[in-house]
Amino acid sequence: MQITIVGLGQIGSSLAAALKRTARVAGIDRRPDVVRTALRRRLVHEASTDLDVVRRADVVVLATPVRTLIRQLAPVAKLMKPGAILTDVGSTKEAIVRALPCAAPRAGAKQGAKSVDFVPGHPLAGSEKAGIDACDPALFRGRPWILLPGRGRDVVARLVRSVGARPVLLASARDHDRIVAECSHLPHLIAYALLDLGADLRFTGGSFRDATRVALSDPAMVLDFLLTNARLRPVVDRFVARLRALSRADEKGLRNALHRARARRSTL
Amino acid sequence: MQITIVGLGQIGSSLAAALKRTARVAGIDRRPDVVRTALRRRLVHEASTDLDVVRRADVVVLATPVRTLIRQLAPVAKLMKPGAILTDVGSTKEAIVRALPCAAPRAGAKQGAKSVDFVPGHPLAGSEKAGIDACDPALFRGRPWILLPGRGRDVVARLVRSVGARPVLLASARDHDRIVAECSHLPHLIAYALLDLGADLRFTGGSFRDATRVALSDPAMVLDFLLTNARLRPVVDRFVARLRALSRADEKGLRNALHRARARRSTL
Repeated sequence: MQITIVGLGQIGSSLAAALKRTARVAGIDRRPDVVRTALRRRLVHEASTDLDVVRRADVVVLATPVRTLIRQLAPVAKLMKPGAILTDVGSTKEAIVRALPCAAPRAGAKQGAKSVDFVPGHPLAGSEKAGIDACDPALFRGRPWILLPGRGRDVVARLVRSVGARPVLLASARDHDRIVAECSHLPHLIAYALLDLGADLRFTGGSFRDATRVALSDPAMVLDFLLTNARLRPVVDRFVARLRALSRADEKGLRNALHRARARRSTL
Repeated sequence: MQITIVGLGQIGSSLAAALKRTARVAGIDRRPDVVRTALRRRLVHEASTDLDVVRRADVVVLATPVRTLIRQLAPVAKLMKPGAILTDVGSTKEAIVRALPCAAPRAGAKQGAKSVDFVPGHPLAGSEKAGIDACDPALFRGRPWILLPGRGRDVVARLVRSVGARPVLLASARDHDRIVAECSHLPHLIAYALLDLGADLRFTGGSFRDATRVALSDPAMVLDFLLTNARLRPVVDRFVARLRALSRADEKGLRNALHRARARRSTL
């Protein structure tokens, strides 16, 4: 099986290195230096700056920032051979699914309208490091990898398992985006707002450092998922309501919230 | 020099163990089991459940949760010998200073009205662990230790340096409470609000885990500083305004905020 990965950042290069043990892997990146690095470190069997390489793939994985990925979907699908499977690792899903409506979800596909099958995916992995230098074939081990409905999902689930991740099936892109807004995009936004308060950083302790660590993430990646997640704003509004209520709570209300939160956090 | 520490939780017991190398240290805790543990592990030279031990001290350090500490201030000061120095490690300072107005700040003290000198203090140290089992004599090493004006500040500063901390002099309890609200109390409140959103914890990544780690802290300690920091609410309101603005920012505004925050976080 030939797998082609478009975008050799932390996620793409880690996936390439992890898949290379069991499949033939090609990598595509717009930067020639990244392509050279991927080849030199043997993270891939072949690499190129040319998108045309997707023609030979049985599975194509788009691993570029979300807005780049949205622009690449149609041209990549057009180049792919009939029956091949397209998947992606983008952190938002509604905007991506909307960009290739005839391929996913399967129910909406007209028979024969497109021969490429699209399985939207999202590995919950990665750190504040970015780029091919952060390549780690063990990055996905034990992590959930969300898959939305799409023909070929079984094939993608097998690939996901082969790199040590746990496929988790979700029914809708909208659910995905809300969940990810609560579990990841909101904590990102909080970090930026905290750092924007002008606090005297000499006096920050562990709580501030922990809450803002994620602000070290690649701005290109974060900008794209924040701008393309339409479910983020209502989640921010719900969070703000909770925060305000806590800051005005009486002793009993605050004590209950503290114990509730502590018990919940202990399960993580 | 005899130093008596009231409250042998993480901060009190760590301070006792660190000071014991250079001073005679007595510990007081209301729990007999904690007193026994302190003696068995030789964290102190003597220990008792009886507050009366403060009579012999040259320096008394109050290391109980803020509201307990406020209740103890006057009775402890009354027991202390003339010329002895009282200090504390409470995370809020306005409410504490208000509880012993004739002793701090010095300018407000009537000559002879009280023979005990009070130096309000706050070590920026500690973790989400609590109690004497979290005792770590190296806890203060390299950390800032805020001291407010008060007669005897030089003596307290020397003790602070002797455990490896850096004394930082602030002019007012109000400034202290605002700074600490921005740098620590707000990140705590954020953690509780995040955990109260009902997010599906299966899908949390590093950003959520980091931002909520502090919710594992001792609820008794956190409850007290959240309830006694009058500067927290305006800081929450400023944070909410920033967060809302970011969630509604256009691409350019958001990109600028991301790069600004990343540069600022990199200095930590």
